[in-house]
Formats: sequence, C-alpha cells, structure tokens
Amino acid sequence: MGHIMAADFEQMWRDLAPLGRSASSGGYFRQPFTTAEREATAWFIEQVAARGLDVERDRFGNLVAWWRPGFETPRSQAHEAPQPAKSAVLTGSHLDSVLDGGAYDGPLGVVTALAAVDLLRERGVTPSRPVGIGVFVEEEGSRFGLACLGSRLATGATPWEQARALTDRDGVSFEDALAHAETGTGDLLADVGTFVELHVEQGRDLVDREQAVGVASAIWPHGRYRFDFTGQANHAGTTRMEDRHDPMLTYAMTALAANKQARIAGQRATFGRVDVRPNGTNAVPSAVTAWLDARAETPEHLDGLLADVERQAQDRAGRDGTGLTVTAESVSPAVHFDADLARRIADPHGWPVIPTMAGHDAGVLSAAGVPTAMLFVRNPTGVSHSPDEHAEMRDCLAGVEALADTLAGLA
Amino acid sequence: MGHIMAADFEQMWRDLAPLGRSASSGGYFRQPFTTAEREATAWFIEQVAARGLDVERDRFGNLVAWWRPGFETPRSQAHEAPQPAKSAVLTGSHLDSVLDGGAYDGPLGVVTALAAVDLLRERGVTPSRPVGIGVFVEEEGSRFGLACLGSRLATGATPWEQARALTDRDGVSFEDALAHAETGTGDLLADVGTFVELHVEQGRDLVDREQAVGVASAIWPHGRYRFDFTGQANHAGTTRMEDRHDPMLTYAMTALAANKQARIAGQRATFGRVDVRPNGTNAVPSAVTAWLDARAETPEHLDGLLADVERQAQDRAGRDGTGLTVTAESVSPAVHFDADLARRIADPHGWPVIPTMAGHDAGVLSAAGVPTAMLFVRNPTGVSHSPDEHAEMRDCLAGVEALADTLAGLA
Repeated sequence: MGHIMAADFEQMWRDLAPLGRSASSGGYFRQPFTTAEREATAWFIEQVAARGLDVERDRFGNLVAWWRPGFETPRSQAHEAPQPAKSAVLTGSHLDSVLDGGAYDGPLGVVTALAAVDLLRERGVTPSRPVGIGVFVEEEGSRFGLACLGSRLATGATPWEQARALTDRDGVSFEDALAHAETGTGDLLADVGTFVELHVEQGRDLVDREQAVGVASAIWPHGRYRFDFTGQANHAGTTRMEDRHDPMLTYAMTALAANKQARIAGQRATFGRVDVRPNGTNAVPSAVTAWLDARAETPEHLDGLLADVERQAQDRAGRDGTGLTVTAESVSPAVHFDADLARRIADPHGWPVIPTMAGHDAGVLSAAGVPTAMLFVRNPTGVSHSPDEHAEMRDCLAGVEALADTLAGLA
Repeated sequence: MGHIMAADFEQMWRDLAPLGRSASSGGYFRQPFTTAEREATAWFIEQVAARGLDVERDRFGNLVAWWRPGFETPRSQAHEAPQPAKSAVLTGSHLDSVLDGGAYDGPLGVVTALAAVDLLRERGVTPSRPVGIGVFVEEEGSRFGLACLGSRLATGATPWEQARALTDRDGVSFEDALAHAETGTGDLLADVGTFVELHVEQGRDLVDREQAVGVASAIWPHGRYRFDFTGQANHAGTTRMEDRHDPMLTYAMTALAANKQARIAGQRATFGRVDVRPNGTNAVPSAVTAWLDARAETPEHLDGLLADVERQAQDRAGRDGTGLTVTAESVSPAVHFDADLARRIADPHGWPVIPTMAGHDAGVLSAAGVPTAMLFVRNPTGVSHSPDEHAEMRDCLAGVEALADTLAGLA
C-alpha cells in the first residue's frame, strides 16, 4: 500500500514538474492566470476528475475538489444523521509561484492532499465529514502585489472593491484577468470547519531537530511597503556630484540600513524588487521605487522596524535632496494557529510545533476564525522562493502519511 | 533677415517637438529605429528635400544632407578648380535621445545646422567647399548600449563584427534592427576635412561666464562598466539575515562607494541602470546587474576611479558571500579637440573655450583624425538627459549665428 502510494505520488510530481519551469534557471514562473498556472490547474482538474471528486469554483478563481464519501458508498449514513454546520475539513494549498520560484512552495500541499485522499481510500477510511482539496489563487502576490489574494477574498479579509483594481506590471487589472479566467459561483468556505495546509518548510528548524514533519504554532506579522524615492534626472557625465539629487543613493543607503536593522534585532527586512526610471546608463535617475518586505515577532516589533528604516531613509533623503513616500501595500497581522488543534495533531507522533516567518493561506483562514493547522515538511537547505528549494522524496511521503493521519483524525 | 531666420528656426523646433515626447513626463523617447526616431528622421529628410539638398546614407543608418553650391549655381567653378581631397565641412549631430531625455541633446545640433545653411544662403554666401548636415544613429547608446555607435562605425573605431551582435533589452540585435531600417552604401566621411557639432551645454559653465556660446577644448575619458553581482535566491521571510547571500546589498554598498569616491576626487560615477532577478517582493534576489558610468580628467584617473570602486565592491562581496564580475562595455579615451581650430573659431567672437565631461560624435571623429570643433549653447540649469533640459530661444538663435559664422569661415 505504501509502495503504491509512493509510486502514485512520484508520478504526479513528475507530471507537474515541467509546467512553468524555466529551462535556464530551473525555477518556476507560475503567475496567476498565465499559461503555466492554467496548465497546472488543468492538471489538478484531471487528477480530481480521475478520483471522482466534484469541483467547485468561486468568483475569484479559487477552487475546491470535494470528497464526499457519504454520497459515493452504499454505506452512507448522511441522510440519517445530518452533519452539523461547518462540518467540512479542507486541505490543499496553491499552485502559483513567485518569479523564478521553487517546485515545492504550494504544489507540495496540493499533491500531498491528493495522495493523502488516495491513501485514506486504500486504507478503507470513510470520513464522516466532507473533505475538500483547495487551490487558492495568487498566494504569492507575485502578479497583483497582494499575497494570499484568493484566500483574502474568499474569507472577506480583502473586499472585492479593493482587489478588483489591483494591477500587474503590464497594467492589467485583477478584474480584467479574472474576466478571462474560469470562475464559478460557489462559496467554498461556507461549510469548512477546519483547514489543514501542508507546506515545505522555509527554514531549517526541522533539519536542526532531525524531524521530517512539523506543525506550525504561529506566523510572524509581516508587511510589504512601497518606498517611492524621487530625485532629478540629469546627465551622468556633466553633472557635478554635489549638484545631484540622485534617488539611487537614497535607496542604496535604505537597503543597507534595513538589512542592518533586521540583522541586529533578529527580524527580517528585504528589498528584493526595484524599479528605476528611466533606468539608463548615462542618466542620473529621476525616480527609484523599491519594495520592503519586513517581518518581526510581534506587531509592535514590526512597526518599530519599519519606523527605524523609514527614519534613516528620510534622513538620507534630506541629505540627498530627494523625496520619499512610504506606502503600506499589505500588512498581515500575527497569526496564532489553534493551539489545541496543533497539539492534537503533533503530540501522538512527537512532531515538533514551530513558528514560521512566511505568510500562507492558512494564516488568512485562521485570522478569519477557521480553526487551522499547518504541517511542514523538512527542507534540507532551508532555501525557498528559489530554484534551489528542495525536499527529499522520503520526507514528502512522510508528509503524505502525516496529512492522511491528520485528515483521518479530523474527518 | 535675422527675423526670418528666427521664425524659421522656431517653426522647425515646433514641428520636431511632439515626436517621441511622453505625455506624462514631458521627456523624449527616441531610441534608434523606433517609430519616434523614424519620424524625426523623416522630418529631417523633408526639411533637406525642401532645401534641395542631396541625402546620402551609409550602411549603418547614418545620413548626411549635402549642400554643394558648386553644382547648383551657374557660377560654379568646380570643373575648373577641382577641390582638394577631404575638402568638405560637416556639421550636424543626432536625433536619438536617452530614455526620457530632453528636447535639445542632439536635435539642437541638427536644427541649428539647417537654420545656419538658411542663414548663409540669405546672406548670399556661396561656400567653396561642400557643406554636409549629418545625423548619426544611436549617439546615446540607449538601445544597444554603445554610445556614438553610428559615428564609431562610420570612422571604423568600432568594427562591424563587434557592433552587429549588440542587442537591445528585448534581445533584438543591431544587425536585425538595421535590416529593417533605411540604409545606403555611401562613405559619408570620405571627403570630410572638418567637423563642427553644435550641442546644448550639459553643465553651467556658460551660465557662470554669462556667455550664450562656447567652444569645446576637450572631452574627459569615460567608460561604461557592467557589474554583475550574483547571490542566492531565497525566501524574504524565513531566511535569517545571517544566512543570506544577497547581491542587492553588495550592489547598494557599491553604488554608495562609487558616489563617494567620485565626489572626493571631483570625478563622475553614476549607477543609473539596474536589473534585478527575479525582482520579486518576497524573494532575496539571485542576481543584480548594474552599470557604472565613470568619467575623470585623465585615463589614469579613470582607471584609478574604477579600481577603487571595484576593490570596495569585491571586499563587500567577500563579506556578503556574493560574486562579482566587472566588464568594460565601452571605454572612450580623452579627446583633445584641434586647439588651433578652437581658437580660430572662438577668438574673433570672444567665446570661451571649455572642456566637457560628455561624450559626443565629435569626440569620435576627432579621435579618428578629423579636425573637429564643438560649439555649446548655454543651458540655464545645466540639467540634461532629463525632461528639464533647456535652452532659451535667444541662445539657440545665437547658436545658429555662431554656427553659420563658423561654417562660413571654414567653407
């Protein structure tokens, strides 16, 4: 049985592997509503169809494949003992990636969910509650700039009126992109009483603990802040250094200051995205826009980190004769996953319960009041959001077993 | 006569003004072989056709409109007294711009040349030598990365084998772009004995001297150097600051170091163009490529500036665990314009003779052994390569007079 499951899992992983993969970097480009992401979603639809699961979509492009054993076996007791409200157990993750991302962030939670349902069926388990495998859109925010956009919309954390106008780098709005995507009218979370998301670990905590699987305790609060530096375009050769108002310098000092501040405090601050105008070799730039990704253990620490970085940036802008405005594009509060649930899942197996600094749809559902748990699978290098992201096959299979056990306990 | 010339000049300036102008910034986008640049060139062709001048093109897209009075008036003595070799006087400049550039850098030299020919004709001057108005392609290097590409090819300073493979940001090669452009078979410089380029000043020397017109003494040596910083892509949230190999930090420190080094030494160092991969908000970058534009008063000082910046960058790369390679994409030696010619042009009018830190086609022709002079027209703010670049109309007209006087003296 374990052997069949392993072979099936590896086959699914091989099928999904080429979709959206860059031949040069080996990384993935699966931005929402692009060809690569549509292909990955189509692959998922085929997989669940082959398993006889019903697919339900909502108007935001999220989807859930439902396993409702009560309707497929003659032993069903569903009509005799109606289930309580919010009875369903949802698992799954996302299929989109960051730009040049890894194979595991997202897809591992979807493929292990399929394999866990297979394993439960092989074991003859008939859950007493509906089990859903969900795929949320734009988890990474790599196209429209707001992470967990699909789950934020599904839970109402982000209103449609705000989301519709978000635009990608080419100026295409989320609303326009959705208009060309397959959507539905379902309310996917209406009946969901518990959510469990499995994810590759994005750090080395499990490596240090020599454990293949762990359970999440909490997510650090984090935010994305747009820094708009403005200066005066000028000739790179003829303009004396002391006559310049060069926003590149203000930005450069800010990037270094953010790094230092986070390093000292054991927090996270990253400038990974920069747009320069006009971005010409022989011109002092007129403007530099850069995005700060900041994370800290409490909201107060996060506010303090941002304030420190912004203060240093404004001081430098004053010296450079440049301008700076800072805009919070998204701020996610701290998430504390259901502690009882985490212990119930972790304790029987001795899995460690650990925090994470990465945002997830699980965090959005938890914040919306859905009892939520996350399972992590060990990542040998801790690297993620990179072509180097990795998990050993035996650890992935341990993740399938863990997810199946968890679903069996919940459903 | 001066009144007619002024009206004609202003009309030409108005005709050219909208071509390639950005409605949002007010700056110009006239990259070679784009619609905007083709329109500007077509406008030039119309202008010279209306003046009865012959247009000659070379295989690189450069063109010259020839005024050969010997062939257009019955008073021609050309068949009786053959002109010596290299007898022609060439003026002109370029019509391309940097990204989001100003209206004057390039076009002012072309439009004043047309107006100067008009003025000489109005004055009844019949030059004894052919007078050419040249338009060189890709002077700014804003598309294919090598400044003065057209004049470098025309003089042989850059061989075709090197130029053909240059690519723009979309991967289009210079050879492919040329294949779709209008070209010819002329050898434009074959008969050129003197070149005079008029240009808006890119600094405030003439403002300080309260002069509308100046003459160039020399061009500083300068170069473009590509800095390729490599690191390790990773998750911006989960990766501890001390575990990162973030090339953005190495770049940021390098940009600040270059600025400081040039400021201390009265030189120029600018990072105006940056490409980040993957350029995602929540990923530590895998690579940052940035271009250093460096200029100094002597080749030795330029080499010293580059060495200082590179040494500091390599030191920081060592601390960041990142990689760095530096590639010289183009290095232009110092140009000392023909000193006798400059004095002959400047002295009768009392125009100052001043150096410049900006590269020009005039520098390429001078380096190739063509006796060359440059005229500058005052720029009130000194700003160039920017929508803010400016020259007062009365100073432009003073430039027309100066160029006409210079051409009359030479031809």
